[in-house]
Amino acid sequence: MQARLGAVKAQVQGALDRAIVALPPGELRDAMGYACAGGKRIRAFLVMESARLHGVSDHAALPVAAAVEALHAYSLVHDDLPAMDNDDLRRGLPTLHVKWSEATAILAGDALNALAFGLLADPAVGDAAARLRLVAALARASGGAGMVWGQMLDIAAESAAVPLTLDQIKELQDGKTGALIRFAASSGPLIADADLAPLTAYADALGLAFQIADDILDVTGNEDVTGKRVGKDASAGKATFVSLLGLDGARAEATRLIDAADAALEPYGKDAENLRQLARFVIERDT
Amino acid sequence: MQARLGAVKAQVQGALDRAIVALPPGELRDAMGYACAGGKRIRAFLVMESARLHGVSDHAALPVAAAVEALHAYSLVHDDLPAMDNDDLRRGLPTLHVKWSEATAILAGDALNALAFGLLADPAVGDAAARLRLVAALARASGGAGMVWGQMLDIAAESAAVPLTLDQIKELQDGKTGALIRFAASSGPLIADADLAPLTAYADALGLAFQIADDILDVTGNEDVTGKRVGKDASAGKATFVSLLGLDGARAEATRLIDAADAALEPYGKDAENLRQLARFVIERDT
Repeated sequence: MQARLGAVKAQVQGALDRAIVALPPGELRDAMGYACAGGKRIRAFLVMESARLHGVSDHAALPVAAAVEALHAYSLVHDDLPAMDNDDLRRGLPTLHVKWSEATAILAGDALNALAFGLLADPAVGDAAARLRLVAALARASGGAGMVWGQMLDIAAESAAVPLTLDQIKELQDGKTGALIRFAASSGPLIADADLAPLTAYADALGLAFQIADDILDVTGNEDVTGKRVGKDASAGKATFVSLLGLDGARAEATRLIDAADAALEPYGKDAENLRQLARFVIERDT
Repeated sequence: MQARLGAVKAQVQGALDRAIVALPPGELRDAMGYACAGGKRIRAFLVMESARLHGVSDHAALPVAAAVEALHAYSLVHDDLPAMDNDDLRRGLPTLHVKWSEATAILAGDALNALAFGLLADPAVGDAAARLRLVAALARASGGAGMVWGQMLDIAAESAAVPLTLDQIKELQDGKTGALIRFAASSGPLIADADLAPLTAYADALGLAFQIADDILDVTGNEDVTGKRVGKDASAGKATFVSLLGLDGARAEATRLIDAADAALEPYGKDAENLRQLARFVIERDT
């Protein structure tokens, strides 16, 4: 799985670089490139593996992987803004509005959002119907009933008098990180017009486990390793999976979810080994 | 033309309201609805007339008209932010970040951006290939080589030591307002897979005339009528078509452009009468 992840990282970085270098030169393009550099590329990996399981070539899946990473990058840039999470560090580097300006960060995010949809229209992906299924699914996953909806709940939670309950945190995370992970994992069956159920169930469990692992890292992580500020949630008095379940309880829940993710992959048999390993990687990572 | 514009306004407001009410209830949805209320709906009108000239029904064109207005609304919400133009008044009402918060304005804009692409995927519009041509064109028009590119040039101009030249202002406006107007005017031929040249030429002239008229209104307009702050450009020492050409020169250039827009419509004969009237309306409006 690590070899495949490494190959996907290189491929998706190449695809993003090619798309961004085609834009007019200047600060906007530079900022877009900065936002799209690095990252774990877990969403791209999900796209490529989901595609492979449905007989879709790497060549066809690559623009979709680049699209989901461009969209993810835009969401991080906007999320880091002073009016949102006000983060100054991301992947060990200054966040975009710190390096350039708030205006540049807003606009670079907006342009990456458009770029994501443009990438889905790439003829290499498949026939028009397949690409259109992706467009409709990404619009739903990233919009006012998906990712942005979850971010809005997250912002509201910060000023709420009462900490969120476990169910409310699950709803929030299902939007904020779950929706895009679900889109990425569904892209193979979306292109091939196949059954979405197994990979949707896998993505639901994986997305939640991923977020629990993030909450654990916010408590146990090292800034030098994670490349982002840690201890933010506790100091903000925010309810997290760790504050609600305890550290051991959160770890147990993450492990239970990884088993559920494993079970959801059963229809794919041994072909889904990379996705099984990804699930374990997600809760064992230190960044 | 005014009757048709009135009908389009009602239709497109209905389509936007239906799309937004389908989202989860809450502040995000309310803010999106607020951002999409009112407006001149010139872009929607361009979509509907461009479609009609290519045998595309109002029913098929309506989601595209709603998409272009949702995208335009997102661009205004982000443009009004304190880090951008810092405007507190829009269409006679408080701007979104004043009424709610900056975070809500950023997220409502992001969700409207996604909504626009979702609307283009509506099966009512046409076959998958037609909808995909629209998606690719809107991604180009609104992204880092189109609208956002123009907004970035506009922001850069504000802190530049030397005012922009006429050519630079034209390039800026060609992105900032021209690209989306061109998309709207092209949507008929895009759906019908017909020649884009006549309506592209029309839109180029119309877009520039529209911006010159905006610059004239910023000097001669009345806040109570325009519903937005006037005199902003002059007080900011910004180069505009009026500062570079003078008031009479700007009016003459707008009139010349409207003649060019007229001429571009020649292949459509009398069928394009509404678009001819729109061009005159654009430079004669007082809001």
